[in-house]
Amino acid sequence: MNLSMVMDLYELSMANGFQQSLAGDEGVFDVFYRKVPDDGDFVISAGLESVITAVRDFHFDADDIQYIKNLNLFTPSFIDMLINFKFTGDISAIPEGIPVLPREPLLTVSGPLEQVQLLETIILNLINYQSLIATKAHRITSAAQGRAVMEFGSRRAQGPSAAVLGARAAIIGGCSSTSNVLAAKQYGLPISGTMAHSWIQAFPDELTAFKKWAEIYPDNCLLLIDTYDVLSSGLPHAIQVFKQLAADGHQPIGVRIDSGDIAALAREVRQVLDQAGLHKVKITASSALDEHIIHDMINDDVPLDSFGVGEKLITSATSPVLSGVFKLSAIRRHGEVIPKIKISGTASKVTLPGEKLTYRLYDRVTQQMVGDLIALKHEQVMDTIIGQRINGKVQSQEETLTHFIAIPLQQQVFNQGQVVYESPDVLHIQQVKNKNVTAITQTLAERTDYPVYISKALAQLQAELLNHNES
Amino acid sequence: MNLSMVMDLYELSMANGFQQSLAGDEGVFDVFYRKVPDDGDFVISAGLESVITAVRDFHFDADDIQYIKNLNLFTPSFIDMLINFKFTGDISAIPEGIPVLPREPLLTVSGPLEQVQLLETIILNLINYQSLIATKAHRITSAAQGRAVMEFGSRRAQGPSAAVLGARAAIIGGCSSTSNVLAAKQYGLPISGTMAHSWIQAFPDELTAFKKWAEIYPDNCLLLIDTYDVLSSGLPHAIQVFKQLAADGHQPIGVRIDSGDIAALAREVRQVLDQAGLHKVKITASSALDEHIIHDMINDDVPLDSFGVGEKLITSATSPVLSGVFKLSAIRRHGEVIPKIKISGTASKVTLPGEKLTYRLYDRVTQQMVGDLIALKHEQVMDTIIGQRINGKVQSQEETLTHFIAIPLQQQVFNQGQVVYESPDVLHIQQVKNKNVTAITQTLAERTDYPVYISKALAQLQAELLNHNES
Repeated sequence: MNLSMVMDLYELSMANGFQQSLAGDEGVFDVFYRKVPDDGDFVISAGLESVITAVRDFHFDADDIQYIKNLNLFTPSFIDMLINFKFTGDISAIPEGIPVLPREPLLTVSGPLEQVQLLETIILNLINYQSLIATKAHRITSAAQGRAVMEFGSRRAQGPSAAVLGARAAIIGGCSSTSNVLAAKQYGLPISGTMAHSWIQAFPDELTAFKKWAEIYPDNCLLLIDTYDVLSSGLPHAIQVFKQLAADGHQPIGVRIDSGDIAALAREVRQVLDQAGLHKVKITASSALDEHIIHDMINDDVPLDSFGVGEKLITSATSPVLSGVFKLSAIRRHGEVIPKIKISGTASKVTLPGEKLTYRLYDRVTQQMVGDLIALKHEQVMDTIIGQRINGKVQSQEETLTHFIAIPLQQQVFNQGQVVYESPDVLHIQQVKNKNVTAITQTLAERTDYPVYISKALAQLQAELLNHNES
Repeated sequence: MNLSMVMDLYELSMANGFQQSLAGDEGVFDVFYRKVPDDGDFVISAGLESVITAVRDFHFDADDIQYIKNLNLFTPSFIDMLINFKFTGDISAIPEGIPVLPREPLLTVSGPLEQVQLLETIILNLINYQSLIATKAHRITSAAQGRAVMEFGSRRAQGPSAAVLGARAAIIGGCSSTSNVLAAKQYGLPISGTMAHSWIQAFPDELTAFKKWAEIYPDNCLLLIDTYDVLSSGLPHAIQVFKQLAADGHQPIGVRIDSGDIAALAREVRQVLDQAGLHKVKITASSALDEHIIHDMINDDVPLDSFGVGEKLITSATSPVLSGVFKLSAIRRHGEVIPKIKISGTASKVTLPGEKLTYRLYDRVTQQMVGDLIALKHEQVMDTIIGQRINGKVQSQEETLTHFIAIPLQQQVFNQGQVVYESPDVLHIQQVKNKNVTAITQTLAERTDYPVYISKALAQLQAELLNHNES
């Protein structure tokens, strides 16, 4: 699959038009979202590594070109541009694993209009989905309070690349492992897996199936105990096999319960295992789990050691869309920067114009995160600045921000078409996420929400453009 | 991306175990679902074409083998089997575009246990997602009552392959076109697209942007009129450009409204267009549409000619999972067929054991669909049979079915590893879907629901295995 062709037709139509009508103009586009899935507080950024590869390798094969030519919509010089496509612009982006608030540019892409427009669909597709899943995985793993959460969703993922990219995003969001072989291979992720009911069904009886498994995987023996009946069949058979394993010098791993009243079953299973002296044998639950079910079970002290989470995670089932957009914020023409705005009847939907930088503000003394600031690129953001909140309940009120250290959130990723950023490995990104989430959660615990400010200069620019376009 | 590696680790673990413990045994697995998304009446089957390709091309590359070897879980002879993997079994399947009811085998896969187990993840992934989207597209296009529905969702699809496979499934389900270039190229789908707000924003003013578009695409001029304000800006500018186009001998296509109160705006826009004599100019709506919004607008006679549907379709947002499963129904050992069952406390979750065939029953006289029958493979299904309903409100009651013509739903797709089925083209599948949906809808209009029966022999086999396993 050539990812460059995963593109809406109108990107081609507009790029063809830009080449004819606005040749030489550069566009500056921001990628941002407006609403956090599941009404959460923030989104965990993810997908940048795949965006870098997709943009670096952006190209059209001979048969792609032939198909596009045959649409009879485009000029020969545009087709030539596609044949020789090479991105020559800049991208800066918030690294993966960082909590991002609504309206903050996750990525900023700039370069010749006809180039940048072509990148819209694939960038949004990759960032929207992976950030969605990292965010959901963060919700689910938070609910698990330190217990392992295994990503299990490949069979219910929305297509093959969702299974693979979603597995990576799930690890970023806090999962301990994935079941997906390709994702584990490609991104060096921890992998795990047990057995399905078919293993047990294929043998004449459950005990034989368990014994065979223990023979083959004596040091990886995690048994699925709900094929026939957990308490009267699966558990006693598992205990029989575990005792033999232990006698042979192996440590049995655990049991998995995949159906029924998980909480009630887990309590009984724990008791019976303990009575059998199998205190180290762990209990794993699966079966359509999500953050709410896990949260409730842990609150009720259900004795579960880990969770296998499938469809609810890999599709973010209760909130399956992150609606990131790709909006023009400025045109560069002959060295001049012309800020651009998209108007809407809803104030929060009016875009933030101009070339901007987003800062995370830390208190100079306590080092605590105190809020984010979106300012114009050329502004000095030091020590004191007047800002105006754009999220939360209090809007449009000017506040003087002071005693902060401002750290820019975005890093440069492409410079004049060259990749200048190296993605950390996924487990490192997971650590970055943990650290940042701990910090923002601490701030959120002390306030009703986390403030995002725009600078007075940005607010004024927005007001000017609004007046200009409405007049 | 090697689709064969889009696999849960436990498939490898089980296959390795089967090769050691049950060498020579063949497994028969059914793919079916239990619950229709969005509480609908049926699922539209989709994804078979991609399953055929995935199974035909199933293989492991040298680096895949190296990765799997390094897991240190598997025997050398299993690794050899992977290196030389070639599916040698059979697959039969319900063709794409057919309404399928809960518990009916969408696919049946049989062959050496260790081969078939490896196919589980990718088959479920492809069938679950594509059938989900075909079903959602059917719901949305039905709501549109003949008006065109354009699939627009690539940027919000769950990863690149969801954009492409989802676009194809959307056409099967009834969409008139997709915006996705790769899907259109690969599957020969109708393609469509307009412009984004960035086109208008990039120019000094909206009128200039519209004029430039009309110059470049005089015969494809569909203008997006909500960048600044629909009624005071977008519409009058569009009308000015359309009049010039008409004067130059071109037929302007239409306007698109992507925000605001679509129903109210569409009414005003229609009136103003008509007053300007532009009766043929169409109005398209987009902006987070789904089947309910479209249904309500059409019921209220909102003058819309077509719809662009994005995230709600391509993710099936209100019901984003089709929970298809892959369950062992029989083992073939030395020529003997041993039926297999998976038990559950919930009656509808007990699997249907044995090698089966599913028939759609048509009344001999009226030719109307009267229900479906799942019977054992060796049963004679002619004229009269005793069945028992397994869906709907009335369960377990024996009924004598008679005066029917029984048409098997599944067709053979693989025979001893060879592909023996040719997928029709997608627009043909859409016609098949239309015809079949019309027929089943007619039946549903006359009854509270559509009955699915199992034969008495199948019911007896299920009861025997239940008793055997519970004793």
